[in-house]
Amino acid sequence: MVKLIGDERLDYLLAENLRIIQSPSVFSFSLDAVLLSRFAYMPIQKGNIIDLCTGNGIVPLILSTRTKGNITGVEIQERLYDMADRSVHYNQLEQQIKLIHADLKSMPQELGLGKFDVVTCNPPYFKTPQKDKQNLNEHLAIARHEILCTLEDVIKVSSQLVKQGGKVAIVHRPGRLVDLVELMRRYGIEPKRLQFVYPKQGKEANTVLIEGIKGGQADLKLLPPIFVYDENHEYTPVIKEILYGKKEDK
Amino acid sequence: MVKLIGDERLDYLLAENLRIIQSPSVFSFSLDAVLLSRFAYMPIQKGNIIDLCTGNGIVPLILSTRTKGNITGVEIQERLYDMADRSVHYNQLEQQIKLIHADLKSMPQELGLGKFDVVTCNPPYFKTPQKDKQNLNEHLAIARHEILCTLEDVIKVSSQLVKQGGKVAIVHRPGRLVDLVELMRRYGIEPKRLQFVYPKQGKEANTVLIEGIKGGQADLKLLPPIFVYDENHEYTPVIKEILYGKKEDK
Repeated sequence: MVKLIGDERLDYLLAENLRIIQSPSVFSFSLDAVLLSRFAYMPIQKGNIIDLCTGNGIVPLILSTRTKGNITGVEIQERLYDMADRSVHYNQLEQQIKLIHADLKSMPQELGLGKFDVVTCNPPYFKTPQKDKQNLNEHLAIARHEILCTLEDVIKVSSQLVKQGGKVAIVHRPGRLVDLVELMRRYGIEPKRLQFVYPKQGKEANTVLIEGIKGGQADLKLLPPIFVYDENHEYTPVIKEILYGKKEDK
Repeated sequence: MVKLIGDERLDYLLAENLRIIQSPSVFSFSLDAVLLSRFAYMPIQKGNIIDLCTGNGIVPLILSTRTKGNITGVEIQERLYDMADRSVHYNQLEQQIKLIHADLKSMPQELGLGKFDVVTCNPPYFKTPQKDKQNLNEHLAIARHEILCTLEDVIKVSSQLVKQGGKVAIVHRPGRLVDLVELMRRYGIEPKRLQFVYPKQGKEANTVLIEGIKGGQADLKLLPPIFVYDENHEYTPVIKEILYGKKEDK
């Protein structure tokens, strides 16, 4: 049995055959986090993976189906950390996924430099606005706005945590792409794979997936675009597969 | 009548109802140049536009159908400059298009700083390889390799030529995207519009179109992707329209 608090639900991750605790008023994972979990390079048999800004643990949970390596999730909000922790236990993944309730900026000192093969992060997207324009819900505000960490914090810390030749994968909004690539280069992470997500054909992209290699050579690959909806406003086959799994599994 | 030299042909630009001198052994324009000519912002009624690395003048010729402004084309290779010049005269566009046979690096000094509303450039794509791996045809080598100008030269000169608030549009390979945005920022041109061209659905992009604003605010828009071929290896409707014009015109 799992303990659910307030308006929490035990939602399904259908494609992964897992369940996850969510709450509309505290934190629900986004499609972006799912796309990041599918986009990031994963060592299959072993390795150390760390997910920053892990929220309710969506990325570690999905990654656990792609690797036998050790996965660490870091979340600064105790309420979200607790949700993630209960989900990990519900899925009996405590041997593989370790959650840390801490400020990501303290991780290099606590965990050591260059210890991880892969760093993933779905950071807050929005620059901190004036106080009166922030989301009034503190949990959502911290998850969405650069209140407790900036994009530069995320990339600097990622660069410190990842080993030479290791990979850093981040999902963000296209409006920050220039900042992303500039900051990655500044901290020694060369952008190598880039993929854009468009809500549908003919629309501007609203999500960017980027992966860099610590100390890598300059050479960027642009993966095929992902479209979320088709012309009938239904999920495209690629999104259906990501969310619901392959047809054969059904 | 037009004078054609060697293997030159007087090819059609169908969509624009223009003709252009080309030569397989000296210079033929690419789809990328056409896409750049359609992608770049153009003032309609007036303004000063300059196209660097203009080759046989393909970009100025197409731009002349989108603006009443003055267009300058700069080409360092005399043989190509001469082709461009003859094409401009053949199309009777000498009032609108002025061609300069010069090194683009001398343009800021000769033409003055901040005089242009728009700068366009389809530069050489490849870093200069060892001499023995360069294209043995000197005309093609100079057009394709960074022999006489580097990407940094192009962006630095563009930044000097364009006025504050003016636009710089460049077409390049995705592998250089990180260099593009980093150099544009370094020279005060904030990337604002980005569009990727994919050979077909499911393939990696092979061309990137980018436009920045001199002194602009950070905020990048990602335009819908362009696919060149459909599943039957035919041009997609958007490419057909770009190359052959709208159906109504036929």
